[in-house]
Amino acid sequence: MASAAKAAVEAVQDGVHKLGLKESKKKDAKAPPSAKELFRAAMTNVLERRLFFIPSFKIYGSVAGFYDFGPPGCAIKQNVTQLWRQHFILEESMLEVECPAVTPEAVLKASGHVDRFTDFMVTDMKTGECHRADHLLKAALEALLEDPKAGLTPEKKTEAEDVLARIDELDSIGLGTALTRYGVKTPDTKNDISAPFPFNLMFRTSIGPKGDAVGYLRPETAQGIFVNFKDLLYYNGGKLPFAAAQIGQSYRNEISPRAGLLRVREFTQAEIEHFVNPDDKDHPKFESIQQLKPLLFSQELQTNETKQPEAMSLGDAVTNKIIANQTLAYFIGRTYLFLVGIGISPKRLRFRQHLPNEMAHYAADCWDAEVECSYGWVECVGLADRSAYDLRAHSDASNQALEAYEKFPEPRFAQVLVAKPEKAKIGKLYKKEGKPLLEKLDNLSQEDAACMKKSFGEGKPATVSAGGRDFEVTPDLLDIQEKEEKLNGRKFTPSVIEPSFGIGRIIYCMFEHAYYTRQNNEDKSVFRFKAAVAPLKAAVFPLVQQPEMNSTARSISAALTRAGLANTVDTTGTTIGKRYARTDELGVPYDITVDRASIDGDGSVTLRERDSTSQVRVHKEKVAAVVQQLVSGELTWQNVLDTFPAQQPAAEEEA
Amino acid sequence: MASAAKAAVEAVQDGVHKLGLKESKKKDAKAPPSAKELFRAAMTNVLERRLFFIPSFKIYGSVAGFYDFGPPGCAIKQNVTQLWRQHFILEESMLEVECPAVTPEAVLKASGHVDRFTDFMVTDMKTGECHRADHLLKAALEALLEDPKAGLTPEKKTEAEDVLARIDELDSIGLGTALTRYGVKTPDTKNDISAPFPFNLMFRTSIGPKGDAVGYLRPETAQGIFVNFKDLLYYNGGKLPFAAAQIGQSYRNEISPRAGLLRVREFTQAEIEHFVNPDDKDHPKFESIQQLKPLLFSQELQTNETKQPEAMSLGDAVTNKIIANQTLAYFIGRTYLFLVGIGISPKRLRFRQHLPNEMAHYAADCWDAEVECSYGWVECVGLADRSAYDLRAHSDASNQALEAYEKFPEPRFAQVLVAKPEKAKIGKLYKKEGKPLLEKLDNLSQEDAACMKKSFGEGKPATVSAGGRDFEVTPDLLDIQEKEEKLNGRKFTPSVIEPSFGIGRIIYCMFEHAYYTRQNNEDKSVFRFKAAVAPLKAAVFPLVQQPEMNSTARSISAALTRAGLANTVDTTGTTIGKRYARTDELGVPYDITVDRASIDGDGSVTLRERDSTSQVRVHKEKVAAVVQQLVSGELTWQNVLDTFPAQQPAAEEEA
Repeated sequence: MASAAKAAVEAVQDGVHKLGLKESKKKDAKAPPSAKELFRAAMTNVLERRLFFIPSFKIYGSVAGFYDFGPPGCAIKQNVTQLWRQHFILEESMLEVECPAVTPEAVLKASGHVDRFTDFMVTDMKTGECHRADHLLKAALEALLEDPKAGLTPEKKTEAEDVLARIDELDSIGLGTALTRYGVKTPDTKNDISAPFPFNLMFRTSIGPKGDAVGYLRPETAQGIFVNFKDLLYYNGGKLPFAAAQIGQSYRNEISPRAGLLRVREFTQAEIEHFVNPDDKDHPKFESIQQLKPLLFSQELQTNETKQPEAMSLGDAVTNKIIANQTLAYFIGRTYLFLVGIGISPKRLRFRQHLPNEMAHYAADCWDAEVECSYGWVECVGLADRSAYDLRAHSDASNQALEAYEKFPEPRFAQVLVAKPEKAKIGKLYKKEGKPLLEKLDNLSQEDAACMKKSFGEGKPATVSAGGRDFEVTPDLLDIQEKEEKLNGRKFTPSVIEPSFGIGRIIYCMFEHAYYTRQNNEDKSVFRFKAAVAPLKAAVFPLVQQPEMNSTARSISAALTRAGLANTVDTTGTTIGKRYARTDELGVPYDITVDRASIDGDGSVTLRERDSTSQVRVHKEKVAAVVQQLVSGELTWQNVLDTFPAQQPAAEEEA
Repeated sequence: MASAAKAAVEAVQDGVHKLGLKESKKKDAKAPPSAKELFRAAMTNVLERRLFFIPSFKIYGSVAGFYDFGPPGCAIKQNVTQLWRQHFILEESMLEVECPAVTPEAVLKASGHVDRFTDFMVTDMKTGECHRADHLLKAALEALLEDPKAGLTPEKKTEAEDVLARIDELDSIGLGTALTRYGVKTPDTKNDISAPFPFNLMFRTSIGPKGDAVGYLRPETAQGIFVNFKDLLYYNGGKLPFAAAQIGQSYRNEISPRAGLLRVREFTQAEIEHFVNPDDKDHPKFESIQQLKPLLFSQELQTNETKQPEAMSLGDAVTNKIIANQTLAYFIGRTYLFLVGIGISPKRLRFRQHLPNEMAHYAADCWDAEVECSYGWVECVGLADRSAYDLRAHSDASNQALEAYEKFPEPRFAQVLVAKPEKAKIGKLYKKEGKPLLEKLDNLSQEDAACMKKSFGEGKPATVSAGGRDFEVTPDLLDIQEKEEKLNGRKFTPSVIEPSFGIGRIIYCMFEHAYYTRQNNEDKSVFRFKAAVAPLKAAVFPLVQQPEMNSTARSISAALTRAGLANTVDTTGTTIGKRYARTDELGVPYDITVDRASIDGDGSVTLRERDSTSQVRVHKEKVAAVVQQLVSGELTWQNVLDTFPAQQPAAEEEA
């Protein structure tokens, strides 16, 4: 590795996050690569060479946005999803489901994806190449602001900065105006570009042989949970709160994917939908996480002078109404524990609250777990209180009540609205099509009835969605009376709190936080993976190529395998130093070397720990059990150093 | 459950497989359902009611061929795939990969799927409804042969039976002729049908925003492994044999899917590609499985008089050349151990060899693991020696050498063919398009060179595929000379042995083999899942609703969770008998009941085993550890009965 790269790796190890939130973009091709870019290049070189991940379909020239996980990457992904399953599904008794990726149009029409899951695209007027409008505008504005020769007046500068800050809010007209105003061209060809137009990011297909049933590959796993809400509530004995979860592939046909594993067209999500009574969002286990102090980057901190996140206890954050409720804060705490547990550095992890303009109109509160890496701060987990939006949308579109029932401890007497549809009139007016309307009016919620009564009072008709269309309902079609009633309980649409994890992004950031090079040798790359995450837990080396040593190595390997520990045997007979270096690159935490003494002497083998490179002698019959205890956390390496005789590494071993 | 259903369940439990290979089809709507159909209906009722699996998108009316796994089904699927991973990937040190489902056309063109992955379809001439041609023909012929009023002459009968036996071999013309000859109509409408035409079963989509890059959802996971062969061989240090594996979703747009989980449009495959030197297909661990005696249904046994499979040791099967080689037999043995290990009854599992007309021209040998269930014998695993077909196909299409190198122990002297392309002539003739041809000719294998030399000798030009097109090569474009050369080794295309598992089918058959009803109460359904497969390992019941019992139950649950054992607490206070019945339906192997004595007495709880329904008293602090040892297999239930004091169940508990 060149020493510039070495310096870069060290800078990042020392905490490149101090450099600020945003890395300045290099527009000038001749500018030297930044420290972060050198770090990333050095690490990616190891990741691709050792097949952690590689571009898919390489022998056919690859396709942007698709990656394969090779053997070590695949093992890490398995480990991370299994840890996620243990941490969330098992420990919280969540209901796991698995739904197909191919999804009929009706589901994604109801969820809003068919109409609104779009990015704005522009095309090169000569070549037809496609680009994301916001990406082009952003790059152009950043180049303009950084160019000393641009000679911007202070007013022009402020204006450009303003547009840059508001890019995410711009619609097609706003984007088009800005692209024209700043004379944006295609970056490579310098050709004119088209006006921006929305491009739906879902992969489209058709289901069945007739070709008339449109389907899409799901853009998120969440919808599979929502459409099963009724069954899941029943499975849970009709009781709230409960959470359902799904781990699976999602698909987004990105316009021009870059940024490696961070923006891909097929990726693994792990999503939780926690259904809760909107009047009671306390969490029974809140106490267990309220002392945690993650970095919180609230709306206020983002808009005040310092613009820096602050470590704050989750208990205080809820008390001071910074986080909307206990359940949302509980999941922030559990997410923090999960991410730190798999190796994300807590100093480079923050929870950023959505600003009012980022938040959907229905959302009660929204936080992103952002992890700092060489690309800047990357959203890895979204945590949102989506109120009743999703269940209502599917209820309206499918005409199925998606509600829970709450029994009151004591009956209550209350003024209730009783709505009586005029069946004959509705039938005459809408014929067959009126059927879903009638069903809907027969099961009107109190909120809806109140809303309609208000409209009628103002002399206006009410609009009711049913069976996929809108109906105008006038007072002669629906009689609404207020009555006092004894209520034993109430039906309501639950709120949903949704933690949504991007597994690939988390793994990529974890790679960056784990990567370093040896102080004494910059060519030696190491991943300091936690043992639970590491692709292999141990490697076994016969010191030289010799049948007895090979056979002892294989026995140790078999014992490790029986204990469920992935491992490898390297019988190449290469120098031990080289074999250590090879397994360090894979992040293998423990190496076991079989030598002459293991066969003829005291039967001991060398056990070496990856990060300290320190070594002890352990009996060959015992070593698998020791590694198992190290991996499960029953033993620390310090315990092992205190228990077993040390072995001084030969000079060449760690050279 | 009606007593007819009860009888059916018992018949199946008693070994309905004795009834014969094929179940007679009920064509008459008024005919009573068969024992197998009643058994299936009773079991499916439980499976759907308890959300093992349910039709997807139910609130939108469902779409044929898509199923969701609900919480217990999802847990079982997780357990089965993790067991598969341990049994194959970990124990055999396979290289696991994970590739995208969205696949560019070039890959599936090379594999043959774009051109040949089709079923023949006919449409209803009036309604346009689509049907599989072979299914309609089969149903019509079976109805004809079973209809006593059809009055078939012996000749006609033999002819119909012949066609029925050969349906899978018929091409579109053959199918069309037969459909016309037997006057087949659409079953429901009795309308005329169209001539059969091929329908490609892949879901088609387009990749990227321009809409011109065709992609498909992969119809199998195997291709992702083949296209990565070069990198995987490098990862394995260039050495053969090695195996790569992939677990993931595959997609087939079936024309009219039926048969529940057995024929779905999206499903999970677990596929292994074992790459091996074609000259040496012995397996180093063959000894470990050669004594196993699975039911083998060889070509000979299928075509002789008895038509019955026979139990035979795998060692004998290889020695007698019934199974082509040790490696294929080794995987048959490992597959047998896996399937029996997760709960498939060995008596209802057979390995059926493909008949010559079923086997692809390139296949060296092919066996299916078939499991008997209420639908008959169902293919759950395919085990094929596919020789070098797949790697050759991708090598030809991508113009990349996909070969391994074998170093000879001693150098060999041999006559080799040296091919020298006439670059200038080729350039002049084919211009730019000749580039892939030149590359190919520069790297010609000995087999290909020999083949071309033969053509030239016969005065014929040779056809060479390169860069996706065919070239005609004449002797003036390529000079081929025979020379003696010293060879240190050779390049060759490895053979591939492919075990391919359909996880959903295996799970469905496992459900059938696990399902029974209590002898004393036909309403009580039980799944006798193996503990490792069971969705929950234990349920904890406070005997009555009481804070101290609830809190003890929660402590036990937390201890189980810490041990990684999925569990549930049922605090409903319903009778213990009802709670046992509920968990029996989910196949939970162990129930723990907390009562007065657990709090005020000796601190013991009741531990009950699902299948024997016998109970013992174990101390509440110890019970989680006992369950853990039972689940891991360290203890048997008999050990527990011998160690702990028995408790007589109250009469009503198992009523």
